[in-house]
Amino acid sequence: MLYLGYDIGGTNIAAGILDEEDRLIVKDSLPFPRGKGTDAVIAVCRTLFDTLMDAAGIKENEIGGVGAAVPGSVDPESGVVIDAHNLGFHHTPLRSLLGSALDKPVALVNDADAATLAEHRTGALHGTKTSIMITIGTGIGGGLILNGTLFRGGRGNGTEPGHMVLVNGGRKCTCGISGCAETYCSATRLRTDGEQIGLGDAKSVIDAAKNGAADASDLFARYVDDLGSYLASLINLLDPERIAIGGGVCGAGSFLLDPLRENVRKKCFFETCPEIVRATAGNDAGIIGACLIAK
Amino acid sequence: MLYLGYDIGGTNIAAGILDEEDRLIVKDSLPFPRGKGTDAVIAVCRTLFDTLMDAAGIKENEIGGVGAAVPGSVDPESGVVIDAHNLGFHHTPLRSLLGSALDKPVALVNDADAATLAEHRTGALHGTKTSIMITIGTGIGGGLILNGTLFRGGRGNGTEPGHMVLVNGGRKCTCGISGCAETYCSATRLRTDGEQIGLGDAKSVIDAAKNGAADASDLFARYVDDLGSYLASLINLLDPERIAIGGGVCGAGSFLLDPLRENVRKKCFFETCPEIVRATAGNDAGIIGACLIAK
Repeated sequence: MLYLGYDIGGTNIAAGILDEEDRLIVKDSLPFPRGKGTDAVIAVCRTLFDTLMDAAGIKENEIGGVGAAVPGSVDPESGVVIDAHNLGFHHTPLRSLLGSALDKPVALVNDADAATLAEHRTGALHGTKTSIMITIGTGIGGGLILNGTLFRGGRGNGTEPGHMVLVNGGRKCTCGISGCAETYCSATRLRTDGEQIGLGDAKSVIDAAKNGAADASDLFARYVDDLGSYLASLINLLDPERIAIGGGVCGAGSFLLDPLRENVRKKCFFETCPEIVRATAGNDAGIIGACLIAK
Repeated sequence: MLYLGYDIGGTNIAAGILDEEDRLIVKDSLPFPRGKGTDAVIAVCRTLFDTLMDAAGIKENEIGGVGAAVPGSVDPESGVVIDAHNLGFHHTPLRSLLGSALDKPVALVNDADAATLAEHRTGALHGTKTSIMITIGTGIGGGLILNGTLFRGGRGNGTEPGHMVLVNGGRKCTCGISGCAETYCSATRLRTDGEQIGLGDAKSVIDAAKNGAADASDLFARYVDDLGSYLASLINLLDPERIAIGGGVCGAGSFLLDPLRENVRKKCFFETCPEIVRATAGNDAGIIGACLIAK
Protein backbone atom coordinates (compact mmCIF):
# COMPACT_ATOMS: atom_id res chain seq x y z
CA MET A 1 0.00 0.00 0.00
CA LEU A 2 0.99 3.64 -0.59
CA TYR A 3 0.39 6.49 1.89
CA LEU A 4 -0.25 10.16 1.22
CA GLY A 5 0.85 12.89 3.61
CA TYR A 6 0.15 16.61 3.95
CA ASP A 7 2.37 19.13 5.67
CA ILE A 8 -0.05 22.00 6.23
CA GLY A 9 1.77 25.24 6.97
CA GLY A 10 0.66 28.84 7.20
CA THR A 11 2.38 29.65 3.88
CA ASN A 12 2.12 26.45 1.82
CA ILE A 13 0.40 23.10 1.89
CA ALA A 14 2.89 20.45 0.78
CA ALA A 15 1.90 16.88 -0.03
CA GLY A 16 3.58 13.69 -1.16
CA ILE A 17 3.19 9.93 -1.52
CA LEU A 18 5.39 7.39 0.26
CA ASP A 19 6.02 3.93 -1.19
CA GLU A 20 6.44 0.69 0.73
CA GLU A 21 10.17 1.31 1.20
CA ASP A 22 9.45 4.71 2.81
CA ARG A 23 10.60 6.64 -0.27
CA LEU A 24 8.79 9.80 -1.37
CA ILE A 25 7.79 8.97 -4.97
CA VAL A 26 6.05 12.26 -5.78
CA LYS A 27 5.45 15.60 -4.09
CA ASP A 28 3.87 18.97 -4.79
CA SER A 29 2.65 22.08 -2.98
CA LEU A 30 0.13 24.91 -3.24
CA PRO A 31 -0.26 28.17 -1.31
CA PHE A 32 -2.22 28.00 1.95
CA PRO A 33 -5.55 29.80 1.35
CA ARG A 34 -5.08 32.27 4.18
CA GLY A 35 -8.23 33.81 5.61
CA LYS A 36 -10.57 31.82 3.36
CA GLY A 37 -11.78 29.33 5.95
CA THR A 38 -11.55 25.60 6.51
CA ASP A 39 -13.50 24.61 3.35
CA ALA A 40 -10.91 26.34 1.17
CA VAL A 41 -8.11 24.42 2.96
CA ILE A 42 -9.89 21.11 2.34
CA ALA A 43 -10.40 22.06 -1.34
CA VAL A 44 -6.66 22.72 -1.77
CA CYS A 45 -5.92 19.34 -0.14
CA ARG A 46 -8.35 17.63 -2.57
CA THR A 47 -6.66 19.35 -5.54
CA LEU A 48 -3.23 18.22 -4.34
CA PHE A 49 -4.57 14.68 -3.90
CA ASP A 50 -5.73 14.56 -7.53
CA THR A 51 -2.51 16.18 -8.81
CA LEU A 52 -0.37 13.61 -7.01
CA MET A 53 -2.51 10.69 -8.28
CA ASP A 54 -2.03 11.92 -11.85
CA ALA A 55 1.67 12.67 -11.45
CA ALA A 56 2.40 9.24 -9.95
CA GLY A 57 0.01 7.46 -12.31
CA ILE A 58 -1.72 5.58 -9.52
CA LYS A 59 -5.34 4.83 -8.60
CA GLU A 60 -7.13 6.01 -5.46
CA ASN A 61 -7.51 2.45 -4.16
CA GLU A 62 -3.73 2.11 -3.99
CA ILE A 63 -3.68 4.73 -1.19
CA GLY A 64 -4.02 2.95 2.17
CA GLY A 65 -4.46 6.11 4.21
CA VAL A 66 -3.72 9.79 4.60
CA GLY A 67 -1.81 11.73 7.25
CA ALA A 68 -1.80 15.44 7.96
CA ALA A 69 0.87 17.34 9.91
CA VAL A 70 -0.13 20.71 11.37
CA PRO A 71 1.79 23.38 13.33
CA GLY A 72 -0.18 23.10 16.54
CA SER A 73 -1.79 20.81 19.06
CA VAL A 74 -3.85 17.87 17.88
CA ASP A 75 -5.96 15.29 19.67
CA PRO A 76 -5.13 12.04 17.87
CA GLU A 77 -8.07 10.26 19.55
CA SER A 78 -10.84 12.59 18.38
CA GLY A 79 -9.08 13.73 15.20
CA VAL A 80 -9.48 17.38 16.15
CA VAL A 81 -6.90 20.14 15.72
CA ILE A 82 -7.17 21.82 19.12
CA ASP A 83 -5.19 24.91 18.21
CA ALA A 84 -3.06 25.76 15.16
CA HIS A 85 -2.91 29.53 15.31
CA ASN A 86 -1.10 30.07 11.96
CA LEU A 87 -3.78 28.06 10.13
CA GLY A 88 -6.72 29.66 11.90
CA PHE A 89 -7.72 26.19 13.20
CA HIS A 90 -9.30 26.11 16.65
CA HIS A 91 -11.07 22.90 17.69
CA THR A 92 -11.29 22.02 13.97
CA PRO A 93 -12.39 18.42 13.21
CA LEU A 94 -9.78 18.05 10.46
CA ARG A 95 -9.82 14.25 10.43
CA SER A 96 -13.51 14.00 9.54
CA LEU A 97 -13.45 16.98 7.14
CA LEU A 98 -10.45 15.65 5.21
CA GLY A 99 -11.70 12.06 5.48
CA SER A 100 -15.01 12.97 3.85
CA ALA A 101 -13.35 14.98 1.07
CA LEU A 102 -10.89 12.21 0.18
CA ASP A 103 -12.89 9.13 1.23
CA LYS A 104 -9.84 7.82 3.09
CA PRO A 105 -8.93 7.20 6.74
CA VAL A 106 -7.00 10.21 8.05
CA ALA A 107 -4.50 10.51 10.94
CA LEU A 108 -3.33 13.82 12.42
CA VAL A 109 0.04 14.70 13.88
CA ASN A 110 1.84 17.79 15.14
CA ASP A 111 4.43 18.93 12.57
CA ALA A 112 7.38 18.68 14.95
CA ASP A 113 6.31 15.14 15.82
CA ALA A 114 6.02 14.36 12.09
CA ALA A 115 9.59 15.57 11.54
CA THR A 116 10.78 13.45 14.47
CA LEU A 117 9.06 10.39 13.02
CA ALA A 118 10.70 11.04 9.64
CA GLU A 119 14.16 11.40 11.21
CA HIS A 120 13.59 8.20 13.16
CA ARG A 121 12.40 6.12 10.21
CA THR A 122 14.61 7.45 7.46
CA GLY A 123 17.06 10.05 8.86
CA ALA A 124 19.47 11.00 11.60
CA LEU A 125 17.66 9.19 14.43
CA HIS A 126 17.36 5.90 12.57
CA GLY A 127 18.05 2.86 14.73
CA THR A 128 17.67 4.63 18.09
CA LYS A 129 15.35 3.62 20.93
CA THR A 130 15.68 6.87 22.90
CA SER A 131 16.45 10.03 21.00
CA ILE A 132 15.47 13.67 20.63
CA MET A 133 14.77 15.92 17.66
CA ILE A 134 15.11 19.69 18.17
CA THR A 135 14.17 22.09 15.37
CA ILE A 136 15.62 25.59 15.67
CA GLY A 137 13.54 28.13 13.76
CA THR A 138 11.45 31.16 14.69
CA GLY A 139 10.75 29.15 17.82
CA ILE A 140 11.98 25.81 19.13
CA GLY A 141 10.05 22.66 18.24
CA GLY A 142 10.90 19.06 18.76
CA GLY A 143 9.88 15.52 19.44
CA LEU A 144 10.91 12.53 21.51
CA ILE A 145 11.51 8.91 20.56
CA LEU A 146 11.07 6.79 23.69
CA ASN A 147 11.10 3.00 23.72
CA GLY A 148 11.59 3.07 19.96
CA THR A 149 8.39 4.96 19.16
CA LEU A 150 7.18 8.56 18.94
CA PHE A 151 6.17 9.82 22.39
CA ARG A 152 2.96 11.81 22.08
CA GLY A 153 2.82 13.15 25.65
CA GLY A 154 1.61 11.39 28.75
CA ARG A 155 -1.87 12.87 28.40
CA GLY A 156 -1.87 13.09 24.57
CA ASN A 157 -0.88 16.77 24.50
CA GLY A 158 2.46 16.09 22.78
CA THR A 159 5.71 17.68 23.84
CA GLU A 160 6.67 21.36 23.94
CA PRO A 161 10.42 21.28 24.53
CA GLY A 162 10.76 24.94 23.54
CA HIS A 163 8.84 25.87 26.68
CA MET A 164 11.19 24.32 29.19
CA VAL A 165 12.63 27.10 31.34
CA LEU A 166 16.32 27.79 30.69
CA VAL A 167 16.73 31.13 32.52
CA ASN A 168 14.00 31.48 35.12
CA GLY A 169 12.87 35.10 35.25
CA GLY A 170 14.69 35.85 31.98
CA ARG A 171 13.47 36.98 28.56
CA LYS A 172 9.72 37.09 28.11
CA CYS A 173 8.37 34.33 25.85
CA THR A 174 5.30 34.66 23.60
CA CYS A 175 3.70 31.93 25.78
CA GLY A 176 3.79 34.20 28.83
CA ILE A 177 6.58 32.42 30.76
CA SER A 178 9.83 34.29 31.36
CA GLY A 179 12.97 32.46 30.29
CA CYS A 180 11.74 29.67 28.00
CA ALA A 181 14.45 27.84 26.03
CA GLU A 182 12.79 29.23 22.89
CA THR A 183 13.71 32.79 23.86
CA TYR A 184 17.42 31.86 24.15
CA CYS A 185 17.95 29.08 21.61
CA SER A 186 15.79 30.05 18.60
CA ALA A 187 16.95 31.80 15.43
CA THR A 188 14.82 34.72 16.64
CA ARG A 189 17.21 35.21 19.56
CA LEU A 190 20.16 35.48 17.17
CA ARG A 191 18.18 37.93 15.02
CA THR A 192 17.00 40.21 17.84
CA ASP A 193 20.42 40.26 19.52
CA GLY A 194 22.00 40.77 16.09
CA GLU A 195 19.84 43.84 15.52
CA GLN A 196 21.47 45.41 18.58
CA ILE A 197 24.81 45.27 16.79
CA GLY A 198 23.49 46.33 13.39
CA LEU A 199 23.02 42.87 11.87
CA GLY A 200 19.78 41.83 10.23
CA ASP A 201 19.17 38.12 10.82
CA ALA A 202 20.56 34.91 12.32
CA LYS A 203 22.61 34.13 9.21
CA SER A 204 24.26 37.58 9.29
CA VAL A 205 25.27 37.02 12.92
CA ILE A 206 26.74 33.60 12.12
CA ASP A 207 28.57 34.95 9.05
CA ALA A 208 29.99 37.90 11.01
CA ALA A 209 31.13 35.54 13.79
CA LYS A 210 32.77 33.28 11.18
CA ASN A 211 34.61 36.35 9.87
CA GLY A 212 35.89 37.06 13.37
CA ALA A 213 33.85 40.17 14.24
CA ALA A 214 34.27 40.52 18.01
CA ASP A 215 30.71 41.58 18.89
CA ALA A 216 29.11 38.88 16.71
CA SER A 217 31.54 36.27 18.07
CA ASP A 218 30.59 37.16 21.67
CA LEU A 219 26.91 36.98 20.81
CA PHE A 220 27.35 33.62 19.06
CA ALA A 221 29.39 32.21 21.99
CA ARG A 222 26.59 33.14 24.41
CA TYR A 223 24.08 31.50 22.08
CA VAL A 224 26.16 28.28 21.98
CA ASP A 225 26.37 28.30 25.80
CA ASP A 226 22.60 28.68 26.13
CA LEU A 227 21.88 25.99 23.53
CA GLY A 228 24.49 23.76 25.20
CA SER A 229 22.81 24.10 28.61
CA TYR A 230 19.44 23.38 27.02
CA LEU A 231 20.65 20.18 25.36
CA ALA A 232 22.45 19.17 28.58
CA SER A 233 19.12 19.51 30.45
CA LEU A 234 17.46 17.13 28.00
CA ILE A 235 20.40 14.71 28.22
CA ASN A 236 20.57 14.71 32.02
CA LEU A 237 16.85 13.97 32.19
CA LEU A 238 16.48 11.36 29.44
CA ASP A 239 19.98 9.98 28.78
CA PRO A 240 19.26 9.72 25.02
CA GLU A 241 21.44 7.89 22.52
CA ARG A 242 21.36 10.77 20.07
CA ILE A 243 20.05 14.31 19.54
CA ALA A 244 19.32 15.56 16.00
CA ILE A 245 19.15 19.29 15.35
CA GLY A 246 17.23 20.72 12.42
CA GLY A 247 16.26 24.15 11.14
CA GLY A 248 18.05 26.97 9.37
CA VAL A 249 20.62 27.68 12.10
CA CYS A 250 22.13 24.23 11.33
CA GLY A 251 23.31 25.71 8.05
CA ALA A 252 26.24 26.95 10.17
CA GLY A 253 27.45 23.31 10.17
CA SER A 254 30.56 22.50 12.22
CA PHE A 255 30.97 26.19 13.14
CA LEU A 256 27.96 25.59 15.40
CA LEU A 257 28.19 21.86 16.08
CA ASP A 258 31.85 21.64 17.16
CA PRO A 259 31.72 24.23 19.98
CA LEU A 260 28.21 23.02 20.87
CA ARG A 261 29.38 19.42 21.38
CA GLU A 262 32.30 20.66 23.48
CA ASN A 263 29.95 22.81 25.59
CA VAL A 264 27.46 19.97 26.13
CA ARG A 265 30.23 17.49 27.02
CA LYS A 266 31.20 19.67 30.00
CA LYS A 267 27.61 19.80 31.24
CA CYS A 268 26.60 16.17 30.66
CA PHE A 269 26.22 14.42 34.01
CA PHE A 270 27.06 10.96 32.65
CA GLU A 271 30.45 9.44 31.85
CA THR A 272 29.84 9.65 28.10
CA CYS A 273 27.92 12.22 26.11
CA PRO A 274 25.34 11.19 23.49
CA GLU A 275 25.84 12.06 19.81
CA ILE A 276 24.68 15.48 18.61
CA VAL A 277 24.07 15.41 14.85
CA ARG A 278 22.37 17.40 12.13
CA ALA A 279 18.88 16.33 11.05
CA THR A 280 18.86 14.89 7.52
CA ALA A 281 15.23 14.58 6.38
CA GLY A 282 15.14 18.31 5.54
CA ASN A 283 12.12 20.11 4.13
CA ASP A 284 10.30 16.88 3.30
CA ALA A 285 10.34 15.69 6.92
CA GLY A 286 6.78 16.96 7.54
CA ILE A 287 5.33 15.15 4.51
CA ILE A 288 7.24 11.93 5.26
CA GLY A 289 6.17 11.99 8.91
CA ALA A 290 2.54 12.59 7.91
CA CYS A 291 2.69 9.55 5.60
CA LEU A 292 4.27 7.48 8.41
CA ILE A 293 1.57 8.42 10.92
CA ALA A 294 -1.05 7.28 8.37
CA LYS A 295 0.84 4.03 7.94
CA MET B 1 7.37 -15.62 46.88
CA LEU B 2 8.70 -12.94 49.24
CA TYR B 3 11.34 -10.34 48.30
CA LEU B 4 13.95 -8.65 50.45
CA GLY B 5 15.17 -5.11 49.79
CA TYR B 6 18.03 -2.98 51.08
CA ASP B 7 18.15 0.81 51.10
CA ILE B 8 21.87 1.44 51.52
CA GLY B 9 22.53 4.99 52.64
CA GLY B 10 25.62 6.77 53.92
CA THR B 11 24.18 6.83 57.47
CA ASN B 12 22.10 3.65 57.76
CA ILE B 13 21.41 0.46 55.88
CA ALA B 14 17.69 -0.25 56.06
CA ALA B 15 16.15 -3.54 54.95
CA GLY B 16 12.71 -5.09 54.76
CA ILE B 17 10.67 -7.93 53.29
CA LEU B 18 7.72 -7.44 50.95
CA ASP B 19 4.90 -9.94 50.73
CA GLU B 20 2.94 -10.91 47.64
CA GLU B 21 0.50 -8.02 48.11
CA ASP B 22 3.40 -5.53 48.16
CA ARG B 23 3.15 -4.99 51.91
CA LEU B 24 6.26 -4.54 54.03
CA ILE B 25 5.92 -7.32 56.63
CA VAL B 26 9.11 -6.61 58.55
CA LYS B 27 11.92 -4.04 58.51
CA ASP B 28 15.06 -3.12 60.41
CA SER B 29 18.20 -1.04 60.05
CA LEU B 30 21.83 -0.88 61.18
CA PRO B 31 24.45 1.90 60.91
CA PHE B 32 26.42 2.05 57.67
CA PRO B 33 30.02 0.94 58.48
CA ARG B 34 31.63 4.09 57.20
CA GLY B 35 35.24 3.84 56.13
CA LYS B 36 35.45 0.08 56.82
CA GLY B 37 35.36 -1.09 53.21
CA THR B 38 33.00 -3.12 51.05
CA ASP B 39 33.34 -6.38 53.03
CA ALA B 40 32.02 -4.67 56.15
CA VAL B 41 28.99 -3.40 54.17
CA ILE B 42 28.27 -6.92 52.92
CA ALA B 43 28.59 -8.27 56.47
CA VAL B 44 26.03 -5.77 57.77
CA CYS B 45 23.68 -6.77 54.92
CA ARG B 46 24.08 -10.45 55.86
CA THR B 47 23.32 -9.65 59.52
CA LEU B 48 20.17 -7.74 58.53
CA PHE B 49 19.14 -10.67 56.30
CA ASP B 50 19.33 -13.11 59.24
CA THR B 51 17.61 -10.68 61.61
CA LEU B 52 14.69 -10.21 59.21
CA MET B 53 14.35 -13.99 58.63
CA ASP B 54 14.10 -14.54 62.38
CA ALA B 55 11.76 -11.61 62.98
CA ALA B 56 9.38 -12.69 60.22
CA GLY B 57 9.75 -16.39 61.06
CA ILE B 58 10.44 -17.40 57.49
CA LYS B 59 12.94 -19.68 55.75
CA GLU B 60 15.58 -18.57 53.26
CA ASN B 61 13.94 -20.55 50.45
CA GLU B 62 10.83 -18.36 50.75
CA ILE B 63 12.88 -15.35 49.51
CA GLY B 64 12.66 -15.18 45.70
CA GLY B 65 15.27 -12.48 45.30
CA VAL B 66 16.99 -9.47 46.77
CA GLY B 67 17.15 -5.84 45.65
CA ALA B 68 19.53 -3.09 46.72
CA ALA B 69 18.95 0.64 46.32
CA VAL B 70 22.03 2.88 46.42
CA PRO B 71 22.49 6.68 46.25
CA GLY B 72 24.42 6.75 42.99
CA SER B 73 24.69 5.42 39.46
CA VAL B 74 24.31 1.71 38.81
CA ASP B 75 24.67 -0.43 35.72
CA PRO B 76 21.74 -2.85 35.94
CA GLU B 77 23.23 -5.04 33.19
CA SER B 78 26.59 -5.75 34.82
CA GLY B 79 25.38 -5.36 38.41
CA VAL B 80 28.07 -2.82 39.19
CA VAL B 81 27.68 0.37 41.25
CA ILE B 82 29.49 2.83 39.00
CA ASP B 83 29.67 5.62 41.52
CA ALA B 84 28.04 6.09 44.93
CA HIS B 85 30.21 8.72 46.57
CA ASN B 86 28.56 8.65 50.00
CA LEU B 87 29.11 4.88 50.27
CA GLY B 88 32.67 4.95 48.94
CA PHE B 89 31.56 2.65 46.10
CA HIS B 90 33.32 3.19 42.75
CA HIS B 91 32.93 0.47 40.12
CA THR B 92 31.93 -1.90 42.92
CA PRO B 93 30.47 -5.26 41.77
CA LEU B 94 27.74 -5.15 44.43
CA ARG B 95 25.46 -7.66 42.71
CA SER B 96 28.01 -10.47 42.78
CA LEU B 97 29.34 -9.59 46.26
CA LEU B 98 25.88 -9.50 47.82
CA GLY B 99 24.69 -12.46 45.73
CA SER B 100 27.54 -14.65 47.06
CA ALA B 101 26.99 -13.58 50.66
CA LEU B 102 23.25 -14.28 50.57
CA ASP B 103 23.12 -17.03 47.94
CA LYS B 104 20.26 -15.17 46.21
CA PRO B 105 19.83 -13.37 42.87
CA VAL B 106 20.39 -9.63 43.41
CA ALA B 107 19.14 -6.62 41.42
CA LEU B 108 20.51 -3.08 41.83
CA VAL B 109 18.68 0.22 41.52
CA ASN B 110 19.39 3.90 42.11
CA ASP B 111 17.66 5.04 45.32
CA ALA B 112 15.59 7.76 43.60
CA ASP B 113 14.42 5.19 41.05
CA ALA B 114 13.55 2.83 43.90
CA ALA B 115 11.43 5.54 45.54
CA THR B 116 9.71 6.21 42.20
CA LEU B 117 8.93 2.54 41.77
CA ALA B 118 7.48 2.41 45.31
CA GLU B 119 5.29 5.48 44.67
CA HIS B 120 4.11 3.92 41.42
CA ARG B 121 3.27 0.52 42.85
CA THR B 122 1.87 1.49 46.24
CA GLY B 123 1.81 5.28 46.60
CA ALA B 124 1.01 8.63 45.04
CA LEU B 125 1.79 7.63 41.44
CA HIS B 126 -0.31 4.46 41.52
CA GLY B 127 -2.32 3.89 38.36
CA THR B 128 -0.37 6.34 36.17
CA LYS B 129 1.29 5.55 32.84
CA THR B 130 3.34 8.75 32.65
CA SER B 131 4.39 10.40 35.88
CA ILE B 132 7.28 12.00 37.71
CA MET B 133 8.69 11.68 41.21
CA ILE B 134 10.82 14.55 42.54
CA THR B 135 12.54 14.27 45.92
CA ILE B 136 13.60 17.55 47.49
CA GLY B 137 16.44 17.06 49.95
CA THR B 138 20.07 18.17 50.18
CA GLY B 139 19.92 17.88 46.41
CA ILE B 140 17.15 17.05 43.94
CA GLY B 141 16.56 13.44 42.97
CA GLY B 142 13.80 11.85 41.02
CA GLY B 143 12.53 9.25 38.64
CA LEU B 144 10.25 8.88 35.64
CA ILE B 145 7.43 6.48 34.93
CA LEU B 146 7.00 6.25 31.15
CA ASN B 147 4.68 3.81 29.40
CA GLY B 148 3.70 2.46 32.81
CA THR B 149 7.18 1.37 33.85
CA LEU B 150 10.29 2.86 35.47
CA PHE B 151 12.43 4.63 32.85
CA ARG B 152 16.08 3.81 33.48
CA GLY B 153 17.59 6.22 30.93
CA GLY B 154 17.98 5.75 27.21
CA ARG B 155 21.51 4.42 27.63
CA GLY B 156 20.99 2.83 31.06
CA ASN B 157 22.45 5.77 32.97
CA GLY B 158 19.19 6.59 34.72
CA THR B 159 17.81 10.10 35.07
CA GLU B 160 19.35 13.10 36.82
CA PRO B 161 16.48 15.61 36.90
CA GLY B 162 18.29 17.75 39.48
CA HIS B 163 20.88 18.59 36.83
CA MET B 164 18.54 20.16 34.34
CA VAL B 165 19.49 23.83 33.96
CA LEU B 166 16.97 26.24 35.47
CA VAL B 167 18.97 29.48 35.45
CA ASN B 168 21.75 29.22 32.87
CA GLY B 169 24.86 30.93 34.22
CA GLY B 170 23.35 31.05 37.71
CA ARG B 171 24.41 29.49 41.02
CA LYS B 172 27.30 27.04 40.82
CA CYS B 173 26.30 23.43 41.32
CA THR B 174 28.47 20.73 42.92
CA CYS B 175 28.42 18.97 39.52
CA GLY B 176 30.23 21.90 37.89
CA ILE B 177 27.32 23.30 35.87
CA SER B 178 26.04 26.78 36.74
CA GLY B 179 22.33 27.03 37.37
CA CYS B 180 21.18 23.43 37.90
CA ALA B 181 17.65 23.00 39.24
CA GLU B 182 19.23 21.47 42.34
CA THR B 183 20.88 24.78 43.27
CA TYR B 184 17.49 26.58 43.22
CA CYS B 185 14.95 23.94 44.28
CA SER B 186 16.70 21.88 46.97
CA ALA B 187 16.34 22.28 50.73
CA THR B 188 19.98 23.42 50.65
CA ARG B 189 18.93 26.53 48.73
CA LEU B 190 16.40 27.42 51.44
CA ARG B 191 19.06 26.82 54.08
CA THR B 192 21.84 28.86 52.44
CA ASP B 193 19.52 31.74 51.58
CA GLY B 194 18.03 31.47 55.07
CA GLU B 195 21.48 31.89 56.61
CA GLN B 196 21.69 35.30 54.92
CA ILE B 197 18.71 36.45 56.98
CA GLY B 198 19.80 34.77 60.19
CA LEU B 199 17.79 31.56 59.90
CA GLY B 200 19.39 28.17 60.30
CA ASP B 201 17.68 25.65 57.99
CA ALA B 202 14.91 25.09 55.46
CA LYS B 203 12.33 24.44 58.16
CA SER B 204 13.18 27.70 59.96
CA VAL B 205 12.66 29.62 56.70
CA ILE B 206 9.30 27.94 56.10
CA ASP B 207 8.19 28.53 59.70
CA ALA B 208 9.23 32.21 59.55
CA ALA B 209 7.37 32.64 56.25
CA LYS B 210 4.29 30.99 57.78
CA ASN B 211 4.51 33.50 60.60
CA GLY B 212 4.55 36.33 58.09
CA ALA B 213 8.18 37.51 58.41
CA ALA B 214 8.71 39.70 55.33
CA ASP B 215 12.25 38.59 54.44
CA ALA B 216 11.48 34.88 54.87
CA SER B 217 8.24 35.30 52.89
CA ASP B 218 10.13 36.91 50.01
CA LEU B 219 12.71 34.16 50.05
CA PHE B 220 10.01 31.47 50.14
CA ALA B 221 8.09 33.14 47.28
CA ARG B 222 11.22 33.13 45.11
CA TYR B 223 11.75 29.45 45.99
CA VAL B 224 8.18 28.62 44.97
CA ASP B 225 8.66 30.49 41.67
CA ASP B 226 11.88 28.57 40.92
CA LEU B 227 10.35 25.23 41.85
CA GLY B 228 7.25 26.13 39.79
CA SER B 229 9.34 26.85 36.69
CA TYR B 230 11.24 23.62 37.19
CA LEU B 231 8.05 21.53 37.40
CA ALA B 232 6.61 23.44 34.42
CA SER B 233 9.69 22.47 32.38
CA LEU B 234 9.11 18.81 33.16
CA ILE B 235 5.40 19.14 32.38
CA ASN B 236 5.90 20.97 29.07
CA LEU B 237 8.34 18.28 27.96
CA LEU B 238 6.57 15.12 29.12
CA ASP B 239 2.91 16.07 29.65
CA PRO B 240 2.67 13.76 32.71
CA GLU B 241 -0.55 12.76 34.41
CA ARG B 242 0.87 13.46 37.88
CA ILE B 243 3.95 14.71 39.72
CA ALA B 244 4.67 13.48 43.26
CA ILE B 245 6.97 15.49 45.50
CA GLY B 246 8.84 13.91 48.38
CA GLY B 247 11.46 14.97 50.89
CA GLY B 248 11.51 17.07 54.03
CA VAL B 249 10.40 20.34 52.39
CA CYS B 250 7.00 18.69 51.76
CA GLY B 251 6.44 18.87 55.50
CA ALA B 252 5.28 22.43 54.69
CA GLY B 253 2.12 20.81 53.24
CA SER B 254 -0.41 23.11 51.62
CA PHE B 255 1.67 26.18 52.56
CA LEU B 256 4.02 24.98 49.80
CA LEU B 257 1.68 23.01 47.55
CA ASP B 258 -1.10 25.60 47.13
CA PRO B 259 1.06 28.47 45.80
CA LEU B 260 3.19 25.95 43.89
CA ARG B 261 0.17 24.55 42.01
CA GLU B 262 -0.98 28.09 41.22
CA ASN B 263 2.50 29.02 39.96
CA VAL B 264 2.79 25.91 37.77
CA ARG B 265 -0.71 26.39 36.34
CA LYS B 266 0.36 29.76 34.87
CA LYS B 267 3.44 28.22 33.25
CA CYS B 268 1.90 24.98 31.94
CA PHE B 269 1.68 25.15 28.15
CA PHE B 270 -1.30 22.80 27.92
CA GLU B 271 -4.99 23.51 28.51
CA THR B 272 -5.02 21.57 31.75
CA CYS B 273 -2.31 21.15 34.35
CA PRO B 274 -1.39 17.73 35.73
CA GLU B 275 -1.86 16.93 39.43
CA ILE B 276 0.91 17.88 41.84
CA VAL B 277 0.71 15.76 44.99
CA ARG B 278 2.77 14.79 47.99
CA ALA B 279 4.62 11.46 47.88
CA THR B 280 3.14 8.92 50.28
CA ALA B 281 5.57 5.99 50.52
CA GLY B 282 7.75 7.99 52.92
CA ASN B 283 10.93 6.66 54.51
CA ASP B 284 10.22 3.08 53.44
CA ALA B 285 10.12 4.00 49.73
CA GLY B 286 13.74 2.92 49.19
CA ILE B 287 13.25 -0.51 50.77
CA ILE B 288 9.94 -1.09 48.96
CA GLY B 289 11.44 -0.05 45.61
CA ALA B 290 14.43 -2.33 46.17
CA CYS B 291 12.07 -5.27 46.83
CA LEU B 292 10.08 -4.37 43.69
CA ILE B 293 13.16 -4.26 41.48
CA ALA B 294 14.05 -7.75 42.74
CA LYS B 295 10.54 -8.91 41.95
